Amino acid sequence: MKKYADLSPSPRIIMTPGPVEVDPRVSRALSYPMLGQFDPEFTSLMNETMEMLRDLFRTANRWAFPVDGTSRSGIEAVLTGLIEPGERVLVPIYGRFGYLLAEIAERCGAEVVTIEKEWGSVFSTEEVIAAIDREKPSIVAIVHGETSTGRLQPLAEIGHACRERDLLLVVDAVATIGGLPVETDEWKLDAVIGGTQKCLSVPSGMSPLTYNERVEARLLKRKRIERGIRPEGYSDSGEVSFIRSNYLDLAQLQDYWSPLRLNHHTEATAMLYGLREGLRLALEEGLEERFARHRLNERALMAGLEAMGLNLYGDPACKMTVVTCVAIPNGVDGEAVRSQLLADFGIEIASSFGPLKGRIWRIGTMGYSCRKSNVLLTLAALEAVLPLRGYHPVAGRSVQAALAVYREGAGQDE
Amino acid sequence: MKKYADLSPSPRIIMTPGPVEVDPRVSRALSYPMLGQFDPEFTSLMNETMEMLRDLFRTANRWAFPVDGTSRSGIEAVLTGLIEPGERVLVPIYGRFGYLLAEIAERCGAEVVTIEKEWGSVFSTEEVIAAIDREKPSIVAIVHGETSTGRLQPLAEIGHACRERDLLLVVDAVATIGGLPVETDEWKLDAVIGGTQKCLSVPSGMSPLTYNERVEARLLKRKRIERGIRPEGYSDSGEVSFIRSNYLDLAQLQDYWSPLRLNHHTEATAMLYGLREGLRLALEEGLEERFARHRLNERALMAGLEAMGLNLYGDPACKMTVVTCVAIPNGVDGEAVRSQLLADFGIEIASSFGPLKGRIWRIGTMGYSCRKSNVLLTLAALEAVLPLRGYHPVAGRSVQAALAVYREGAGQDE
Repeated sequence: MKKYADLSPSPRIIMTPGPVEVDPRVSRALSYPMLGQFDPEFTSLMNETMEMLRDLFRTANRWAFPVDGTSRSGIEAVLTGLIEPGERVLVPIYGRFGYLLAEIAERCGAEVVTIEKEWGSVFSTEEVIAAIDREKPSIVAIVHGETSTGRLQPLAEIGHACRERDLLLVVDAVATIGGLPVETDEWKLDAVIGGTQKCLSVPSGMSPLTYNERVEARLLKRKRIERGIRPEGYSDSGEVSFIRSNYLDLAQLQDYWSPLRLNHHTEATAMLYGLREGLRLALEEGLEERFARHRLNERALMAGLEAMGLNLYGDPACKMTVVTCVAIPNGVDGEAVRSQLLADFGIEIASSFGPLKGRIWRIGTMGYSCRKSNVLLTLAALEAVLPLRGYHPVAGRSVQAALAVYREGAGQDE
Repeated sequence: MKKYADLSPSPRIIMTPGPVEVDPRVSRALSYPMLGQFDPEFTSLMNETMEMLRDLFRTANRWAFPVDGTSRSGIEAVLTGLIEPGERVLVPIYGRFGYLLAEIAERCGAEVVTIEKEWGSVFSTEEVIAAIDREKPSIVAIVHGETSTGRLQPLAEIGHACRERDLLLVVDAVATIGGLPVETDEWKLDAVIGGTQKCLSVPSGMSPLTYNERVEARLLKRKRIERGIRPEGYSDSGEVSFIRSNYLDLAQLQDYWSPLRLNHHTEATAMLYGLREGLRLALEEGLEERFARHRLNERALMAGLEAMGLNLYGDPACKMTVVTCVAIPNGVDGEAVRSQLLADFGIEIASSFGPLKGRIWRIGTMGYSCRKSNVLLTLAALEAVLPLRGYHPVAGRSVQAALAVYREGAGQDE
């Protein structure tokens, strides 16, 4: 029998767009002893988690719960529940994760129409509305914050436009939830999917989401009670367009999360403990205060990077607070820099995808990773490593610039 | 802002067929600090987990990894990957989870044929083979251990029969993996799905599975590279029967678990730590020794229950070691007994489903919950509670009978 080493992950400073570091209080929660899935203590924790998710998503929706899977499981749950074969879905794409929405919608059988915007920018409301009026979709699916490019798509006006036209608007807020305002009700978003391992700083593995009665009505039309737990006398409606997934079937999942407690799956106990604790910490900090903390650390990071002579990537008008993209200077081997940061300093920053691969670094300031010491350590380490790769910033200037932001910030934003 | 209480789950003795108690070393692993998903330290842990899963499943298959979701996510991943619309799938059903296999297969678009056996028994090999030869399916999907009835379906001969006929055999070993022998290669099982929260004693939320080259060949025929990460020059084959799920797409998942490290999702970091530790502990104990421990505790539990004058449910010839089903005595309110065990003793036992609801209790002896003190405490508490509900066992006899088994067992099985 091969002997495996004791698990002992090295401490890391994780400055990527996720997964990021986890508050020690969340880690502690993960380690608590198990409760049975229908133990009243556990179902109370489930109910509290739903309450907290409503606060997080800024919604009065009845349904707000996690799907047990990573972020894209929540996206697929919403899309597979809503999309009937041939359904017309519009996906405005301005980065990698827009493609993912289109991909999932296609696999669900939709007739997908896309509009694309050059990476580094986002859509104007007019562009999206024009596409809606031209293409006549019944569903619009869009990313709120694109981690691949670090851009933020404003949604309030698009939400109102979709509601006026009686379309459903599905929003991927995986990167923004808990770090930037996501106003589900005010912006008239019909379904919103969040992520855990980014601004919430809970490990990956759950996908919190919320949806309103408009979405629920569609789900219930396509509902099918599964064999083996059908009540006596139940007969299938013969409806051909029943929901094609069992695991990601929101019509069943909402019965599991309701007092019916449908025995659909065994809720992921430890992860639920962790999510509840992560939500508790976010709400205790205060969402506005949390957003302000993310803005302050972003400003310090940007000041430090610019003081190093580096150029930020993308249109600054639509920059997302929690991801900062930096052009890799000409002649510098971006991957060599990343590797050395990880190997020698224990600091992780990210590369990017597709057309941006090798062209930019992406630095996250998310959740528990989003703190002054992390920003300063990252700047100092980057400044120390770059000269070895042929780029020579003026020593010390970067950290000084960041510190100046924190000094100011203490007066205004914190 | 509502103030939420500190998380503080009560200690429980969990004697259900899952989720069960977790070894403190697994709990500790869950609480370790995060690593990035492509951090070489983390990908090493992923590789080690694959190695350990091969040992657990007793297979030389290349592919053995967890899907990030609860057990049925793994089942759906296998079935949605294999089943093309109209595919003929045979599901022999002898309890609730057989219905679930049929349900999932139908949702994947299969033409499902079922054969049913009275609950409490299992199929003879001849019955299954006759159905195969009559119905000519291309896939057979069957449950190895039915927690709803506590029965174990022998699979070796069915496996050989399927292989001779060139069918694919998909096995739900959620309840048995880690507690009873699951001989993937020797029995010629093409795909096997395990669970974490039962005999492995890792929290719910991951579904470890394995499949061979026969399954892989089918997956690759239906593979589709997702939009946004397609290499230049890629064009979709136009194949209409591509895999309908993105999240549960094994063709992509295996690229994530291979040196290609396809960026499909963000692996559930903490859960992976926990799974690796749970596997390490199971292999360190030794699979044979672990199975023997489960048998010994089962014998002690059965002896104790019978000494209380209670009747065991189901055909003893096919009883599954890790779940013991007990007929609720006439006139006893089974739910009242369960509630009192939980409220006063912190002990959880289970009820059952469908036709068995209110007729039997199910007592699990799985993984970390499967130990002498738990068995004795459960027997003593049950003996103490039953007289309050109108059933009067002879005091002390039950625990004495169980202790006698442990005294003997120390000589033979442990």
